Amino acid sequence: MMPDPAFAEWMRAVQVRMEAALDGFLPSDTEAPAQLHAAMRYAVLDGGKRVRPLLAFAAGAVFEAPEAALARAAAAVEMIHAYSLVHDDMPCMDDDALRRGKPTVHVQFGEATALLAGDALQSQAFLVLAEGSDAVDPARRVAMLRLLADASGSRGMCGGQAIDLASVGLTLTLPQLEQMHRLKTGALLRVSVMLGALCGKTLTPTEEAALNDYAAAVGLAFQVVDDVLDATADSGTLGKTAGKDAADNKPTYVSMLGLEQSQALARKLRDDAHKALAPFGDRAHLLRELANLIVQRKA
Amino acid sequence: MMPDPAFAEWMRAVQVRMEAALDGFLPSDTEAPAQLHAAMRYAVLDGGKRVRPLLAFAAGAVFEAPEAALARAAAAVEMIHAYSLVHDDMPCMDDDALRRGKPTVHVQFGEATALLAGDALQSQAFLVLAEGSDAVDPARRVAMLRLLADASGSRGMCGGQAIDLASVGLTLTLPQLEQMHRLKTGALLRVSVMLGALCGKTLTPTEEAALNDYAAAVGLAFQVVDDVLDATADSGTLGKTAGKDAADNKPTYVSMLGLEQSQALARKLRDDAHKALAPFGDRAHLLRELANLIVQRKA
Repeated sequence: MMPDPAFAEWMRAVQVRMEAALDGFLPSDTEAPAQLHAAMRYAVLDGGKRVRPLLAFAAGAVFEAPEAALARAAAAVEMIHAYSLVHDDMPCMDDDALRRGKPTVHVQFGEATALLAGDALQSQAFLVLAEGSDAVDPARRVAMLRLLADASGSRGMCGGQAIDLASVGLTLTLPQLEQMHRLKTGALLRVSVMLGALCGKTLTPTEEAALNDYAAAVGLAFQVVDDVLDATADSGTLGKTAGKDAADNKPTYVSMLGLEQSQALARKLRDDAHKALAPFGDRAHLLRELANLIVQRKA
Repeated sequence: MMPDPAFAEWMRAVQVRMEAALDGFLPSDTEAPAQLHAAMRYAVLDGGKRVRPLLAFAAGAVFEAPEAALARAAAAVEMIHAYSLVHDDMPCMDDDALRRGKPTVHVQFGEATALLAGDALQSQAFLVLAEGSDAVDPARRVAMLRLLADASGSRGMCGGQAIDLASVGLTLTLPQLEQMHRLKTGALLRVSVMLGALCGKTLTPTEEAALNDYAAAVGLAFQVVDDVLDATADSGTLGKTAGKDAADNKPTYVSMLGLEQSQALARKLRDDAHKALAPFGDRAHLLRELANLIVQRKA
């Protein structure tokens, strides 16, 4: 199915809005230390599909969240995501030279600056989220900061990366693979949805559970499709080194389920995501379209 | 002058309290991913003089801040400090093998785990500070999270490290050296004082300015003494590699001012710190003693 033109236009508008927001939330590269600030900006700006901001804005739309608060929350999540890529690409981790079609940060700026830029981006994410003087009241803002910290740390993204690291060359079971991805990429995708929604209101337990189910399904779908693309697309299309998982002997959905079953799983997860949104009716239109997009993307 | 016995006892009590607090605020190393959690605990527990927690508790005492809130704020700052040491010791940064008399985290756990443990400790710091359900109201807690993020990032600690990195082999002016340290170590020492005080109450501008002056003087004194010790003490006493600054051709107070003038500067800064505390009278007794300790320390 083709995305409807209004959705494509909404997406483009969010991406443009986010580029401006991220630009404004990052220190200028004319401010000292200039090299560090240049590396932070290089890592964040002009790159990526902004999937996490799109999820935040789409979830915010369910509850009519104000745009300024959404831009701030989405920028915070995107900075966490960007810093994790900088560190993940470093020689002691994945040792990758290409990201979003550009040299990785440590190739461009050196390892020490890449390490510091990643560290400073994590701080900046919490700073941006804490600094808002918008519609979000302090108690809700503290809750949002807590969710972001939890999703980023050892029980979220960093924990998933550690499991990933320890699993190279090992035979994982499907539940183990799922748990790894639930942390490594799922936690941040989930918090994107939650922070977007929380920009609108404090959630009822029912709303929270529905969004959690949606985010869990979409998060896993995202990873399954990532594995499919790593096995089928070329580096030029992906903007990063393709076939790397197989070369690194990393367990993937494709290596465990095969290509066709992986694709079928992605479609099933999209349907699960749609089902979770039923209570919200038409208000969740954008979240529904994003689930479609995540499953159908080519890069 | 000798520290009074009651102060020494207070210090020991805070250190014991902090060890327990940090232990409780860190995930268990029996929880998966176990290796990551073990590295985080190794980096934080059983080490260091806990200067930052001592500053937080001493500042809290000025405003009768509740202990539970202080332990939480102090633990957050100490986790930021600990993560910065883990990353700073890595081969692409200072490449140091010894810290607090033990092998550094990357020597003990490998570089990838060290990188992730540092990243996860930063998240954990914000999580610990955001999670409190103690006497600090949400608006004040947001302000504290903002201060911690600002002190940790590119306009604080990470920025100072970047300037330090860029200055190896260069001739710095004294103001440039001071600016580097004001960010690299000063920002986190200052935020320790501020967070401790904020655990007690929202500060008046006068209180804030006085604490700022105290923290600036103590922060700089701390660094001057560090340089003196690096030039005069042995590795066994320091628990880290001595003489490293000279070997790395890094600008230090000793290389710029000489030993005696550096020692005189440290004493002058201690006096400045004492003067800044005048408005608080006897309530600032512990902060005063800490300024003495920082200047007189032997390691």
